[in-house]
Amino acid sequence: ESDNLDPIEDLFRDQLSVADMAHLLESIPSRLRDVLWGYIDEDLQGEVLANLHEDIQQGILKRMSPEEFVETTQDVDADDLADLLQQMPVKSSSQALLLMPHDSRRKVEGLLAFPEDTAGGLMNTDMISVRADVTIETVLRYLRKKQLPTPFDVIWVVDRESRYLGSLAVSKLLQSKPEQIVESVMADTPQAIPATADEEEVAQIFERYDLVSAPVVDESGLLIGRITVDDVVDVIIETADHNMMSMAGLDEEDDPFAPVVRSSRDRAVWLGINMATAFIAAAVMSRFEASIAQIVALAVLSPVVASMGGIAGSQTLTLMIRGMATGHITRANLSWMIMRELGVGLINGSLWALVIGSITVIWYGELSLAMVIASAILVNICIAVLSGTLLPFFLKSVDVDPALSGSVILTTLTDVFGFLTFLGLATIFLL
Amino acid sequence: ESDNLDPIEDLFRDQLSVADMAHLLESIPSRLRDVLWGYIDEDLQGEVLANLHEDIQQGILKRMSPEEFVETTQDVDADDLADLLQQMPVKSSSQALLLMPHDSRRKVEGLLAFPEDTAGGLMNTDMISVRADVTIETVLRYLRKKQLPTPFDVIWVVDRESRYLGSLAVSKLLQSKPEQIVESVMADTPQAIPATADEEEVAQIFERYDLVSAPVVDESGLLIGRITVDDVVDVIIETADHNMMSMAGLDEEDDPFAPVVRSSRDRAVWLGINMATAFIAAAVMSRFEASIAQIVALAVLSPVVASMGGIAGSQTLTLMIRGMATGHITRANLSWMIMRELGVGLINGSLWALVIGSITVIWYGELSLAMVIASAILVNICIAVLSGTLLPFFLKSVDVDPALSGSVILTTLTDVFGFLTFLGLATIFLL
Repeated sequence: ESDNLDPIEDLFRDQLSVADMAHLLESIPSRLRDVLWGYIDEDLQGEVLANLHEDIQQGILKRMSPEEFVETTQDVDADDLADLLQQMPVKSSSQALLLMPHDSRRKVEGLLAFPEDTAGGLMNTDMISVRADVTIETVLRYLRKKQLPTPFDVIWVVDRESRYLGSLAVSKLLQSKPEQIVESVMADTPQAIPATADEEEVAQIFERYDLVSAPVVDESGLLIGRITVDDVVDVIIETADHNMMSMAGLDEEDDPFAPVVRSSRDRAVWLGINMATAFIAAAVMSRFEASIAQIVALAVLSPVVASMGGIAGSQTLTLMIRGMATGHITRANLSWMIMRELGVGLINGSLWALVIGSITVIWYGELSLAMVIASAILVNICIAVLSGTLLPFFLKSVDVDPALSGSVILTTLTDVFGFLTFLGLATIFLL
Repeated sequence: ESDNLDPIEDLFRDQLSVADMAHLLESIPSRLRDVLWGYIDEDLQGEVLANLHEDIQQGILKRMSPEEFVETTQDVDADDLADLLQQMPVKSSSQALLLMPHDSRRKVEGLLAFPEDTAGGLMNTDMISVRADVTIETVLRYLRKKQLPTPFDVIWVVDRESRYLGSLAVSKLLQSKPEQIVESVMADTPQAIPATADEEEVAQIFERYDLVSAPVVDESGLLIGRITVDDVVDVIIETADHNMMSMAGLDEEDDPFAPVVRSSRDRAVWLGINMATAFIAAAVMSRFEASIAQIVALAVLSPVVASMGGIAGSQTLTLMIRGMATGHITRANLSWMIMRELGVGLINGSLWALVIGSITVIWYGELSLAMVIASAILVNICIAVLSGTLLPFFLKSVDVDPALSGSVILTTLTDVFGFLTFLGLATIFLL
């Protein structure tokens, strides 16, 4: 297929937008990516680069000299430029900074001062602000001369010292009389976002107040930039991807089309961790080998006990991780949550204890075995929902990502306690 | 705590925005919700209602008469009103429609014609459009008289028959000369979205082209509404929530603070399905009871084989579900994906076969047992990654949600094949 690339050339030259090119590059194996990259118009390569996944950016940036980088990215916005520089080796990025025109360099260095995952790291500096004491006519005249950023829905109002005061929607601007003073028509919303705010907090603010753009201020209230909704959408998608992917031990920034060896390496660690936990559970089970040798049904039924706990626990864990991410579940309602989940555990534990006990009676015809497995199911489901509730809070308090490690730890707990209660009770009551 | 609600009254009357009130209502147990609802100013109840989760909306709407509903929601936007009506019993919603003022009713009925999860269901009708052959001055005069929607960043340009032609950014409008003709300054982007487009497709378009608003057209190209980014953000969050939650058998619209009985019921079905699959695996294992009775180590090591397959498979499945959702993985690159995953399965399968084989030798001191478990691990991991790749495509082609049923089916496969290969090989070679 790679012999005849002319249709691709046509496609890239005339039909695809920058975003489409990035999407296409992300959807093909990494080997083919290098070939296609050469077909992208040099004037567009910078924009395409800014639209790619971090992992893929790193691959392309690795093969670029600092000179090429500066040449390629001259039309890229300062905020994207700052993000790209952070994907480069420190040596290349500082060389690239030195090669940049003075103006862009100052802007980018200002942005690099903020961590990537804060409001400061998300913001751009190409915003329009006006003083509160000028007339609408002055504002309109000023806007005619400026380069206006996209999206352009609102401008910021500041005082003499550049402190943020409020906003003036463009719709308001168009409907005000020329002689009116900005102060008399401006709104005092949205509230300014501190540059140090976490990016997920920013996303929650945008979502809650349906914002398109928001002002960012430094610690003394000076307006230093604005965040636009397109960057917030990226944060929302990344966060969601992170929560989903890390529950399977994957990194949302990893290239889904990475070659075999790299993909294998990326996933091996997770398999190793899970192997360790599987052997912990196996070690618990092996303590009861003597019981199993006498009643082989125990071997057959043990995985059922462990798996019911695992499922019940992962339901609670998922609910908690999502509720904590949206801000609905906090320390304030944790104790209510614990009681509710314990209630759910008791009800569902009893229900499925009864069902599984009945199936066991029918299958093996032994009432005592059925009672042992029923008790073990009830205990394990209760332990599972309790762990599912408390674990994410505990992990967060020791600064460990619950989405990443929660499910492994939980499964280990439900396996170990499942085997322990079932085989323990069996050893006591059936032998 | 519920005795002294005065501070709550203060909070609700003066300090909280509509979005904050909705967030607060969503973060408390359902019993307390009814109490707090009464504290919300009646003029705001409609807006708060529109901001709530569907599950919670239903709870509140159930207790509202059609008269109350129309009274409460008179300030709510037509698109939100259409969504709310769809949460009511059909009888109440048709009564409510009859009680509405003629104008709102016509608007809402127009929107109700579109399924909720399409562009038509997402759009609003309060947009501004101008003809291509008028002057900028005319446009500015027209805008002074209209009620302008939020966000207001761009207006649509149409021909005499109201067919969509392109857009005029407000920034462009502010910088054009009064005598210029709209046609000469308008842009031909964004492309119009057909009313029948799926909401996830809409989200991908907004994300890819960084849109704030987009025009919606009917099948003959007539402009019938616009979609704004705030509604798209909700779609993105819902989709992400859906993918994450349904992997644990949860519904993203379920109230996370539902009372014990309702939560138990919501989760019982999932536990039941998983119990069934656990018993399928147990039934497979029980075919080998004679082998287990002779070599108890088989019972201890079986769950390890099953769990390694489950982990490897769920990594692939997660990667596939996410890639299919973002549009990166399609039928076009599926065969490449299968080969890559098979490669990953062979490498990681061999690696962990070696590790687990070695652990088995050290633990049980039996080389033949180690070779049997190593082979079973390799086979099961390969089956797992293959199933993880093909399953979501197969499920989608028969219109079943891969995020919901993928993981159950996958775990069943890896459990069954894990037990089958390990215990089968053991029976052949060790007895």
